[in-house]
Amino acid sequence: MLNKHYLYIPGPTPVPPEVVAAMGQPMVGHRGDGFAKLHGEIVEKAKAVFQTDNDLFVLTTSGTGGLETAIANTVTPGDKVLALVTGNFGERFARLAATYGAELTRLESPAGTALDMEQVDEIWQARGPFKIVLATHNETSTGVTNDIAALGEYVARTDALLLVDAVSSMGAMDIRTDDWHVDIMVTGSQKALMLPPGLAIVSVSPKAWPIVETNGSPRFYLSLLEARKSFATKNTPWTPAVSLFYGLNASLDMILREGLANVFARHARMALATRAGAKALGFGLLADDAIASHTVTAIVPDKVINAGDLLKMLSQDMNVTIAGGQGELKGKILRIGHMGYCSELDVIMVIAALEMALYKAGMAIELGSGVKAAEQALF
Amino acid sequence: MLNKHYLYIPGPTPVPPEVVAAMGQPMVGHRGDGFAKLHGEIVEKAKAVFQTDNDLFVLTTSGTGGLETAIANTVTPGDKVLALVTGNFGERFARLAATYGAELTRLESPAGTALDMEQVDEIWQARGPFKIVLATHNETSTGVTNDIAALGEYVARTDALLLVDAVSSMGAMDIRTDDWHVDIMVTGSQKALMLPPGLAIVSVSPKAWPIVETNGSPRFYLSLLEARKSFATKNTPWTPAVSLFYGLNASLDMILREGLANVFARHARMALATRAGAKALGFGLLADDAIASHTVTAIVPDKVINAGDLLKMLSQDMNVTIAGGQGELKGKILRIGHMGYCSELDVIMVIAALEMALYKAGMAIELGSGVKAAEQALF
Repeated sequence: MLNKHYLYIPGPTPVPPEVVAAMGQPMVGHRGDGFAKLHGEIVEKAKAVFQTDNDLFVLTTSGTGGLETAIANTVTPGDKVLALVTGNFGERFARLAATYGAELTRLESPAGTALDMEQVDEIWQARGPFKIVLATHNETSTGVTNDIAALGEYVARTDALLLVDAVSSMGAMDIRTDDWHVDIMVTGSQKALMLPPGLAIVSVSPKAWPIVETNGSPRFYLSLLEARKSFATKNTPWTPAVSLFYGLNASLDMILREGLANVFARHARMALATRAGAKALGFGLLADDAIASHTVTAIVPDKVINAGDLLKMLSQDMNVTIAGGQGELKGKILRIGHMGYCSELDVIMVIAALEMALYKAGMAIELGSGVKAAEQALF
Repeated sequence: MLNKHYLYIPGPTPVPPEVVAAMGQPMVGHRGDGFAKLHGEIVEKAKAVFQTDNDLFVLTTSGTGGLETAIANTVTPGDKVLALVTGNFGERFARLAATYGAELTRLESPAGTALDMEQVDEIWQARGPFKIVLATHNETSTGVTNDIAALGEYVARTDALLLVDAVSSMGAMDIRTDDWHVDIMVTGSQKALMLPPGLAIVSVSPKAWPIVETNGSPRFYLSLLEARKSFATKNTPWTPAVSLFYGLNASLDMILREGLANVFARHARMALATRAGAKALGFGLLADDAIASHTVTAIVPDKVINAGDLLKMLSQDMNVTIAGGQGELKGKILRIGHMGYCSELDVIMVIAALEMALYKAGMAIELGSGVKAAEQALF
């Protein structure tokens, strides 16, 4: 079989050739003027994608290190933290707060559902006020997008800080960091930003800084105060992942050249086509249309075929990799990543692979029916 | 001027073309069998370079994050920590311990000198016992190598753990992690390992694990317990920097193919040639021969020319980048990095650039005299 692999998991995602080429540029000293200039430009471009005027930092760590940066710089033992958990990554954010000694209140939504603002208000009345609120914009484990605009409006009326995990949606969906009053927004490099893993990007609001400045938890490598001090001269406090910075500059250029509105529309269309195609093939959809992620679609193969068998067939017969479920959803769902260096034609190809695999497995599938539905959804 | 840059700073160092090519390979899912296999192989190769049978972890963070991993997993507030500070990076290690609440005892050696075992014994009698001892194998800021073998023998007779920063020497010098009784050894990717920055590698001894298991400091992304748990299935707890892992596999292959003994001898010869050449040009050497680093040479331009002017001439006229001093040594020394993808001919080129710059500046330098001395040193 041709050694060509088709990667449609929710991260890492394929890296465009021009980004690979950019990453191959020679090393430079990270204390020199050349790197400082590049660093300054990257931060401005990233602010455009974040839709923010807040301070923004590019950190040499993967997404979880970005989430820990948000927690370690704001949570002191005993602080009241409200964690809005809609899946595995919301749970990770909550665990991080617990690690730093938070007095944690968890509001959990069943898998496939989104956070409910009425419940947020109820729990706030009963257990609040909170110092910190944690939320996930796009829950990678279930394919659900939460309404951060509504949550942000609510939290902005309080003294609390809103910390948001946008690891799997930033650069793919319309995320308005400032309009939504997000105090610390976190993303990673290996999703819609089309880079290999290894960088996190974090924005910090004026409301958050006094908390960061007085927070008592130990942190050094992930210290936002060190990052801010160094950025005054466009430096990083510790040695940055230079090749990934080169790549980030190239990928941000690609995103801004396509235009944010076009990028967002492309991802919305990919989600639409994926959902239509999967439905036509008899799959269930874990999330309702209204809260469906534009970057990852969780499909439920119950009535169709065993999830593990399907994953194996796609991988072994066609070199197509999609993801299974995590935690309690393991073996129960499949997840198709459609973000970053990925267009409508890519998702049609994934649907084609799915329908051929089902056909081969002897299911009563009409060849082409999934693709037809996906194509129709695009018109 | 030709757009070709000659980088001789003590990290980041040039990346070999075959490593660049390896890093350009397509992304894969980091939870798949392919990545697990690669990960397992990388760890075995890195253990060979570390000369250790201890557990070893590749972390997605730069060197300072590796040092913080050592501290955050072993230091609880109030712990007695002895920091052996021989320069800027020893100071950073000490600051890290202070950040985690250590009751810190600093033993400082003047710039350009190495740690003194008699003083270690004296301070141990007066202020010990300590729970943790911090040392730097190769002090990048001064070009001094410390005798970790002697220190390790001393500390091994106590209950204390020995944590060693080998960021700028691992893969270049003969470092015997197990024979020297080093409990946590830390290195980074962007020095002698010939990679871009973004990875740290950390080994952990059986003596260290009970301390790690019971340590009370908060950590998550840098948790060694999480790393150990995931490595049981050749996984990483958080998304790894996949492209840098590809590169690390290739660079470790290069090192092991050349042979560790040959790699170490090459670095020793580069240091010898650099020192001879610089001396012939009238420079002083910050470190004595007996404690001179094999990866970075600090030269003192006092009698020759202003350090800043020389740096600028090399950079602007010849595209050659070497490093200045840090902290109190700023403006007082120059540092030539000779590690990783670098041979004896490279350092001869640097000496040639230095002598041409001095000649151009009107100094009474005989052209070729530095290079001649460097070449002679090699025979």
